[in-house]
Amino acid sequence: MSLFRFQNFAVSLDGFGTGAGQSAEAHFGHAGDRLHEWMFGTRWWHRAEPGGSGGVDDVFARQFGAAVGAEIMGAGKFGHPGWHEDPQWKGAWGPNPPFHAPVFVLTHHTRSPIEMEGGTTFHFLDTSPAEAIETARKAADGKDIRIGGGPSVIRDFFAARLIDHAHIAVVPILLGRGVPLWDGLEGLENDYRVQSTSSPSGVTHVTFTRNGI
Amino acid sequence: MSLFRFQNFAVSLDGFGTGAGQSAEAHFGHAGDRLHEWMFGTRWWHRAEPGGSGGVDDVFARQFGAAVGAEIMGAGKFGHPGWHEDPQWKGAWGPNPPFHAPVFVLTHHTRSPIEMEGGTTFHFLDTSPAEAIETARKAADGKDIRIGGGPSVIRDFFAARLIDHAHIAVVPILLGRGVPLWDGLEGLENDYRVQSTSSPSGVTHVTFTRNGI
Repeated sequence: MSLFRFQNFAVSLDGFGTGAGQSAEAHFGHAGDRLHEWMFGTRWWHRAEPGGSGGVDDVFARQFGAAVGAEIMGAGKFGHPGWHEDPQWKGAWGPNPPFHAPVFVLTHHTRSPIEMEGGTTFHFLDTSPAEAIETARKAADGKDIRIGGGPSVIRDFFAARLIDHAHIAVVPILLGRGVPLWDGLEGLENDYRVQSTSSPSGVTHVTFTRNGI
Repeated sequence: MSLFRFQNFAVSLDGFGTGAGQSAEAHFGHAGDRLHEWMFGTRWWHRAEPGGSGGVDDVFARQFGAAVGAEIMGAGKFGHPGWHEDPQWKGAWGPNPPFHAPVFVLTHHTRSPIEMEGGTTFHFLDTSPAEAIETARKAADGKDIRIGGGPSVIRDFFAARLIDHAHIAVVPILLGRGVPLWDGLEGLENDYRVQSTSSPSGVTHVTFTRNGI
């Protein structure tokens, strides 16, 4: 069964998925790297380089790419505010982005697809969440579809109960400001099986698996 | 060393320490019992009655009364809004409240002390957080002082960095509305050592221990 899911989405203990003051130089605003240090400390992140631990942070992180055939992301993940005014903007990941699959960017500012190295092609959709999933499912060739964020896009798909499985890393810091993940999701747990697993790194891995999956 | 601390304070995953719509009949508003089911499932809660488990939830819960000589609580914990207009109001815990120590209620509506059974006496203070701690410390006779809540009172003492040790149980439900715990506490982790421990009950126990303690 092809799942619509996400992995490795980090929030602060006070529920911010990204900090305030995002810009081209600061993708996560004043949060900096603090939401993702647990991930940088995994063997998965180090890949061929030595270093990184192989514990619970690592096994969660490794689900990121496993059997994923397409990604849906919000306009705010594809670029800092105003990217659509730059016709040369091709995302923040260099010539060979880490997606290696079709990526569907939800935006009111559509443009022609952009083919990158390594199997990533950016497509631009101005459509509803449910229709975006249908489009991505056709491109995913029977594999899973990942929703890449940011927080407000994940919130929209969660609110519509369209997400099959979610992995959220709760990082024990208080950002105080930024983009909240949890707003407007009262009662979400009634439609999901929820588990929490704390890690020696300090992070708690929370998973939501939709009832019926 | 006498610590100013709290235990067994529960928040939802989205950071609410109590639900919306609090009243005399619903102390936690629309949250009902959901924030505390993990605690009701402990051997500590069952006391002399059979039942309850003895795992990580239980050992955290048992720190509630250990070596505590006084409690400070907010007016919103002592009674539902408007309790000060009822001269007969003596709290919501019956004739023998579970504190068994002097309790200092922070309120603009002070009244004479109320002596209850079992060692609990309610005192009423209209003072600053730091002064309240000094008053409670004299009454605690060298033991710890517990801050009982609610969420906005805990937030005030946290913001002033007056809390020495805190135990917060993060419950994997999304209340969506209520009284938030975390607002305005950006960077709290810089002054505390933070640990997280998930439990088979689904709760994650987060502790804050102040640097220098």
